[in-house]
Amino acid sequence: MAAELTAHDLIAKHRPTLDQALEAIRTRAYWSPHPEHPKAYGENGSLDAAAGKAAFDALTGTRLDLGQPGTDDWVGDEVSPYGVELGVTYPHADIDTLLPAMKAGQRAWRDAGAETRAVVCLEILKRISDRTHEFAHAVMHTSGQAFMMAFQAGGPHAQDRGLEAVAYAYAEQVRTPETADWNKPQGKRDPLALTKRFTAVPRGIALVIGCNTFPTWNGYPGLFASLATGNAVLVKPHPRAVLPLALTVQVARQVLAEAGFDPNLVALAAERPGEGIAKTLAVRPEIRIIDYTGSTTFGDWLETNARQAQVYTEKAGVNTVVVDSTANYKGMLANLAFSLSLYSGQMCTTPQNLLIPRDGIRTDEGPKSYDEVVADLARSVDGLLGDDARANALLGAIVNPDVKARLEAAASLGEVALASREVSNADFPGAVVRTPVMVKLDGAKQDDEAAYMSECFGPVSFAVAVDSAADAIELLRRTIRDKGAMTVGAYTTDEEVEQAVQEVCLEEAAQLSLNLTGGVYVNQTAAFSDFHGSGGNPAANAALTDGAFVANRFRMVEVRREA
Amino acid sequence: MAAELTAHDLIAKHRPTLDQALEAIRTRAYWSPHPEHPKAYGENGSLDAAAGKAAFDALTGTRLDLGQPGTDDWVGDEVSPYGVELGVTYPHADIDTLLPAMKAGQRAWRDAGAETRAVVCLEILKRISDRTHEFAHAVMHTSGQAFMMAFQAGGPHAQDRGLEAVAYAYAEQVRTPETADWNKPQGKRDPLALTKRFTAVPRGIALVIGCNTFPTWNGYPGLFASLATGNAVLVKPHPRAVLPLALTVQVARQVLAEAGFDPNLVALAAERPGEGIAKTLAVRPEIRIIDYTGSTTFGDWLETNARQAQVYTEKAGVNTVVVDSTANYKGMLANLAFSLSLYSGQMCTTPQNLLIPRDGIRTDEGPKSYDEVVADLARSVDGLLGDDARANALLGAIVNPDVKARLEAAASLGEVALASREVSNADFPGAVVRTPVMVKLDGAKQDDEAAYMSECFGPVSFAVAVDSAADAIELLRRTIRDKGAMTVGAYTTDEEVEQAVQEVCLEEAAQLSLNLTGGVYVNQTAAFSDFHGSGGNPAANAALTDGAFVANRFRMVEVRREA
Repeated sequence: MAAELTAHDLIAKHRPTLDQALEAIRTRAYWSPHPEHPKAYGENGSLDAAAGKAAFDALTGTRLDLGQPGTDDWVGDEVSPYGVELGVTYPHADIDTLLPAMKAGQRAWRDAGAETRAVVCLEILKRISDRTHEFAHAVMHTSGQAFMMAFQAGGPHAQDRGLEAVAYAYAEQVRTPETADWNKPQGKRDPLALTKRFTAVPRGIALVIGCNTFPTWNGYPGLFASLATGNAVLVKPHPRAVLPLALTVQVARQVLAEAGFDPNLVALAAERPGEGIAKTLAVRPEIRIIDYTGSTTFGDWLETNARQAQVYTEKAGVNTVVVDSTANYKGMLANLAFSLSLYSGQMCTTPQNLLIPRDGIRTDEGPKSYDEVVADLARSVDGLLGDDARANALLGAIVNPDVKARLEAAASLGEVALASREVSNADFPGAVVRTPVMVKLDGAKQDDEAAYMSECFGPVSFAVAVDSAADAIELLRRTIRDKGAMTVGAYTTDEEVEQAVQEVCLEEAAQLSLNLTGGVYVNQTAAFSDFHGSGGNPAANAALTDGAFVANRFRMVEVRREA
Repeated sequence: MAAELTAHDLIAKHRPTLDQALEAIRTRAYWSPHPEHPKAYGENGSLDAAAGKAAFDALTGTRLDLGQPGTDDWVGDEVSPYGVELGVTYPHADIDTLLPAMKAGQRAWRDAGAETRAVVCLEILKRISDRTHEFAHAVMHTSGQAFMMAFQAGGPHAQDRGLEAVAYAYAEQVRTPETADWNKPQGKRDPLALTKRFTAVPRGIALVIGCNTFPTWNGYPGLFASLATGNAVLVKPHPRAVLPLALTVQVARQVLAEAGFDPNLVALAAERPGEGIAKTLAVRPEIRIIDYTGSTTFGDWLETNARQAQVYTEKAGVNTVVVDSTANYKGMLANLAFSLSLYSGQMCTTPQNLLIPRDGIRTDEGPKSYDEVVADLARSVDGLLGDDARANALLGAIVNPDVKARLEAAASLGEVALASREVSNADFPGAVVRTPVMVKLDGAKQDDEAAYMSECFGPVSFAVAVDSAADAIELLRRTIRDKGAMTVGAYTTDEEVEQAVQEVCLEEAAQLSLNLTGGVYVNQTAAFSDFHGSGGNPAANAALTDGAFVANRFRMVEVRREA
């Protein structure tokens, strides 16, 4: 088949972006080729707000035919957390037909080489970027994120993470040259001379197991890291968040076909309600790589059972903020209030335990007692979310009934410092929107430990009274070591406390944000600069993105012969 | 304590070597800073042949006191495969004392940074290099390698592999800068500005489980990769090959102390006969990295049970040579005869199965029948080993009674094409020296499959009659896939066969040597240029050395704050 997109043209188009991405991961300065502003879209082939909305609307109630081999049924019953039935159905695969079909195109994809694979991935990301407005609605109506967050986190930020993975994958593969001449001197005799050829070979088929809350943001790193290293990729979305990944698969298949590759290198595995297909797929011998975001239980199951695969997991953790002292009390309160509210705390990076000395803290506004800090923070959250429109824009919707149940149960765990309230949503009356709850617990009470030492995913935080900064730091260490943490925050003006918190984070391998009082929040990381997770504590066995995330997705095979 | 060796001086001394190593792994051209010729030693502080021998002799019958904490006994009963009792005893550790002591120095070692760690490692390697003659005797009298092989493989080649690991470890850590300024434009508002600090943090304590045959060559990559990435390293040698690694630990401890670091960052775990300490150590929570070379059984056990650790294993495999056709029949026979004889086939890279079409092969000397090829190869081996002095220099000694038993049993597996004979060793009458056995098997006979589809470690090869080149290639594929392979060789003048063999090796991830007829052998790989194993088939889950071998031995922890 004649390719509509030649490697030559794709390299000319995308190599400068790839080079910028390679430079960004080296300097870790700010960079992104994907605009964050909704108004930046609408030209050069990208969909503007209205066109994106129309494209999304046109998808609802349709069958998304991806043209996959082995389709034996049509499945899908997504209901938006905003109360709307999406009515989209997706191909259900006969795995025994689909998996062999996915392998058929791997040799050509392998032989295309690292650069061509990278620019094909960049073309996929570019097409997705052009449809950011459409994807934003798909992410919003599966994750429950508010529109602007769905737009940014589900659009440009997810695309950044995908591009970052491509850059790491490319860099890793080209560390070894394609060929080498090896000449070993032998004194007066002729040198020993070999020519060597090195080929990056894929592991096999990679499985991406998507999550409900960040289908694209958490899905793209594994998807693009595996594809860029030559593997075929099977995408198994969360049953409640199929659409964003199904559209992603659709775009990938289109681009692969246009570039002359087999579209079956990327495929979707949608499932029937309760089918639990991930467990079946994960142990298939063809599956050699798994990327997973979700519960610790299933993550641990994958690590234990999917022994034929390289398994990359992001699981549950308990994120801590140590509150010791601050030179900007208002800024601290505002920053924390935002962090606790954003997307109703439904982020793996949202702080859960705020460790506050029971004797209070030092601030630029004078000493504040434990109760004052908690009350002031509760007031800050109330203030932030006092206006319903603003509350809706920040909170989004509760993603599923489990989160709602945890939120409701939290009030019984201790004294409620900040009660959750229902917020009505004028645009989507069916949306379940709730402000966060904050509960006071005591770090010295054995009874409270079960609560603060478990992840309570959702808009629930605990103001844990501790004896001292030193006590907070020891609890921080124990929490990271036993439960894991995607993020740690700390507020302190005390050099010794700062050093001690840093030392715990270095020893237990957790990412630390210090004294954030402005417009950057502990729960947000930027691709090309921040690592998401460390891969060194129980919350995740991999970090987004580093060399370890890509280096074992391919192997380097050498063929040597005499020169 | 004032360091005798400053980081500044070590950087001045070793940075040029590090830079050359970094360049070598990038170009993969020939390079080594470690001379292969025994006569190259004796100046600039290195021991010459006589001094090295004297140093080794002085070690025998002594207690090697490493000054380790928690030493509760002295153990060691090594008997050289050449029949000499070494009489060296080593510290036996109370693990509950030693492991905590090993952690004490980790913070300073971590804070020293990647470059200082690298040059400290290079100083260790330099001191080892200076004692290459002494190490050669230690390797010879534990592995049974002949002196010249023990000298080269146990000395400069092992040091090369250690240096290669340091170079990869250093490169991996400095991919991320130590600090970054991140400024994100916010339209007309001030940009968001963060300063970020990135620190490579170690996993914990690394365990190196050494092997009998190549204590230094197989031990150094993991040891130096872990140490260079900030981990403490506990070396558990094979009970029959303690001395070379004990000396290595001794040198490492001396250099660490002189450089102002805690010598307990490197320690030895010698054991009592039958103690089986590896199994206990491997699942200790402090052990976060394991490097292992040895049996598939224990390697699989480690991968399954040491879940708290990153586990790098090199296990058993079945190495194949496809013999289809050749333009240099004599060269092929000589090359294969050498490969089968070197160190009595006691290399994980030695060919085992020679797949030869039953209808014969095409050569520059005309067609040769299966029987002729086998007989000619047997004659080549006989010729190579006809002289006892030469045979001893090439074969070395049988490393242990298991290998001898397998060699003796092999003759009953099929028709013996080449019988093994005893070779007497004038220098060491107690040495067990045997020439290799070659047995004819039939790839079409179900009865023969059990033999050729298992690793028969030692001087045993099978001349397997196959129906055709295509049959050979299918058997090659099945062997790699089911049993793993460290090496594959092929002789062919047929472009189609060559392509097919290459394709199998790319698909099954095995390292291929094509048409070797000169002074490079399929069982030899050169550091900085050749990968040892692929990490992509059952023979090993890692390759020496690539990014994946080092990238997960440390994690990158970020501390960010507002600028």
